[in-house]
Amino acid sequence: MTGSTIDLLAKALPDGRVLTDPDVTDSYSRDRTFLAPGAALGVVLAQSRDDVIETLRWATAHRVPVVPRGAGTGLAGGATASEGCVVLSVAKMAQIKELSAADEIAVVEPGVITADLDSAAREHGLMYAPDPSSYEISTVGGNLATNAGGLRCVKYGVTRDSALGLEVVLADGQVLNTGRRTVKGVTGYDLTGLFVGSEGTLGVITAATVRLRRAPLGPPATIAAEFASLRDAASAVSAIIAAGCQPSLLELLDRATLKAIDDWRNIGLEAGVAAMLIAQSDATDGQAVARRMHDLCMENGASFVAVSDSPAETEELIGIRRMAYTAKERLGNCLVEDVCVPRSALPDMMTAIEGAAARHDVLICTVAHAGDGNLHPVFVFDHGVPEPPQNVWDAADEVFRAALDLGGTLTGEHGVGLLKRRWLELETGPLASGINAGIKKVFDPLGILNPGKAI
Amino acid sequence: MTGSTIDLLAKALPDGRVLTDPDVTDSYSRDRTFLAPGAALGVVLAQSRDDVIETLRWATAHRVPVVPRGAGTGLAGGATASEGCVVLSVAKMAQIKELSAADEIAVVEPGVITADLDSAAREHGLMYAPDPSSYEISTVGGNLATNAGGLRCVKYGVTRDSALGLEVVLADGQVLNTGRRTVKGVTGYDLTGLFVGSEGTLGVITAATVRLRRAPLGPPATIAAEFASLRDAASAVSAIIAAGCQPSLLELLDRATLKAIDDWRNIGLEAGVAAMLIAQSDATDGQAVARRMHDLCMENGASFVAVSDSPAETEELIGIRRMAYTAKERLGNCLVEDVCVPRSALPDMMTAIEGAAARHDVLICTVAHAGDGNLHPVFVFDHGVPEPPQNVWDAADEVFRAALDLGGTLTGEHGVGLLKRRWLELETGPLASGINAGIKKVFDPLGILNPGKAI
Repeated sequence: MTGSTIDLLAKALPDGRVLTDPDVTDSYSRDRTFLAPGAALGVVLAQSRDDVIETLRWATAHRVPVVPRGAGTGLAGGATASEGCVVLSVAKMAQIKELSAADEIAVVEPGVITADLDSAAREHGLMYAPDPSSYEISTVGGNLATNAGGLRCVKYGVTRDSALGLEVVLADGQVLNTGRRTVKGVTGYDLTGLFVGSEGTLGVITAATVRLRRAPLGPPATIAAEFASLRDAASAVSAIIAAGCQPSLLELLDRATLKAIDDWRNIGLEAGVAAMLIAQSDATDGQAVARRMHDLCMENGASFVAVSDSPAETEELIGIRRMAYTAKERLGNCLVEDVCVPRSALPDMMTAIEGAAARHDVLICTVAHAGDGNLHPVFVFDHGVPEPPQNVWDAADEVFRAALDLGGTLTGEHGVGLLKRRWLELETGPLASGINAGIKKVFDPLGILNPGKAI
Repeated sequence: MTGSTIDLLAKALPDGRVLTDPDVTDSYSRDRTFLAPGAALGVVLAQSRDDVIETLRWATAHRVPVVPRGAGTGLAGGATASEGCVVLSVAKMAQIKELSAADEIAVVEPGVITADLDSAAREHGLMYAPDPSSYEISTVGGNLATNAGGLRCVKYGVTRDSALGLEVVLADGQVLNTGRRTVKGVTGYDLTGLFVGSEGTLGVITAATVRLRRAPLGPPATIAAEFASLRDAASAVSAIIAAGCQPSLLELLDRATLKAIDDWRNIGLEAGVAAMLIAQSDATDGQAVARRMHDLCMENGASFVAVSDSPAETEELIGIRRMAYTAKERLGNCLVEDVCVPRSALPDMMTAIEGAAARHDVLICTVAHAGDGNLHPVFVFDHGVPEPPQNVWDAADEVFRAALDLGGTLTGEHGVGLLKRRWLELETGPLASGINAGIKKVFDPLGILNPGKAI
């Protein structure tokens, strides 16, 4: 591939769309993993569907791999540039094209920041439910490409549950419209669902019709409970779900995480605390639900339960959860993992993580979207080391296999990207791999879209 | 195809699995549409996954089309036998293999009756949410194959929203496992979602892992409101949704439907009533929600609103909705349609239906899952006429095109089957058709699975 090829693209697009300065392309070549990118030929900053079409036509004509990209907040290497690729950023396509309160839908470009869509919806008494932890900096398009999860999933589902229809540019530049503006519909195969979570390997999303939901009428009610044992905390999770509390957030933090936060911000962590559970209810009778969750935590062995009765106190409790990742990054470089198990397997999974940490002498700090059985064990290693050392991989391998043995999955919400491809077939088996490859070929016969990722 | 070919299958399967008596095969060759089936070579009454595997291996070896079938309650001809096919019934595979209250999931065979799964779940304080009107006689497998809707969709979503994982036998007899036991997961493409709604064209579902939900704690609160104008009724629907009432059922019946019911069962229909709205709330504060829905109906022009305060009265109100289809069948043969529009387009869609009825001199009685914008205009024609006459098709054509013009879809929950294939490309366009055909080929390269249906 030569410089002149990318020049052809630069000429075909409006001025300033293509960047080739290596320092600049490098800054568009990474996501939030440690993964080192290949050298990209250039970066396209698309501002319209036409820019995307032109780029893909050019890529097809010249057989250049294309790595689509939103804000680059991914945690699995899905947007990591590959050698000789063009990075196609849709971050500047950031218009909310329509917001219909009557139909509870929005039509948005892929570069819209997730929190901005949520804010726009709230002006109409609605909300956009998907809220990955990155939602203030990540894009709707990136969330769709990875089928992002988040804290509210436990009540409102994942990004796919909010996707009604997509406009997608295929590898050859053709524009495909999938799905619909209606909440129900069964014409043809579920192509919308297929694109969601396909990590840019099937096409480039240029617009999305998403479902909005009624926003809660008041502020949520919040509790935080401390437990002397992880199993007790997990029992409380089960009890809260079984009682039909329908929490809008149900997060578990292990001692290693709490200690990292305490070392940084002094949250007064007591010696005997093994886990903290933070729960919210956004129901109209949220305070009553919070009291019920308080009681269920006490019945299941909590040593202390705080119930918030002010927005300030709520912020403080939720703030603990928000500090978790930054607190770990202070300790070292982080490999953030993302296993998900059936809820009843949560205690066994926590035990398996502790075992792997001890056996391989790795610091693992775990937070979990406990109501979904989705755990984020964060493997911490030395700041000076760019890639996870072998003992971290060995521990991670053990954690992945334990999740699968417990009937779980390798990734609940981050995606496979580059990071988890070597374990993928352990979960899906060779038959599904072949089928995934066959489907990929239907959409992208030349294999130019984000090759080597996701499947 | 000769008799001896089917004999080979009969020999390969345990005794009694294959039926070839034409009277018997005919009874397994129809769904609930008027569509006349082709002559099937035989019917396989599968009792196990192995029977399904054996049948598909044989079908692949001899290039025999296979028409999979649950209870045959479909309304689009998806299970209508084609000439020279083998009908593969999974109705006898009806075991609930697992029901985990802790994980809120069940693993079931495809022939389990939907209501039976719901009942089994209720013993644990859970429910299986999908409830197509046929749920007392239709199967979970058939519901999955068509992505069936139902009355509770307005709150709990469609069948796809309850499908976590599938075991599927592919055309060549290989067994594919899709999805997972966890509520979240993003490994590989969403094959589960792809199979749901694929109407037996991609594989035969032999087991499903489905999501259960907490059952409401008490009986639902119910209201029924009468309106002198369809537009007022539609405004009430919008108001109920916009107020965040989250009804668990929100059904609209037009005057033609009410009249058919009144002629049969005398429900005391007043002269000026143009529409009835029936709404339920299964929330813990359901009675308060019902009162709010009552007020919203009155504010939007209802002439009368009944609020049920006893299970008997609730039964009576819901009974009116249940009688709708039978009441119409008394009047003639029925073509049941299934358009879905954005909720705000409900009044325009009702107007379009009335216009088509008048222009083509057809009796159309409409019920709608109004909260979802999903309308069932039922075209009534003479009992003696086996197929819809031309004026019915002309009116239906007009209704379909109006739905698409309003940003809607040809089918909200029944599927494309045979019935709607000639309109399909109007909605999806040729590019999606080509992609659907390509996907079909990945799973079923010889095209033996339910050929000529769905896509």
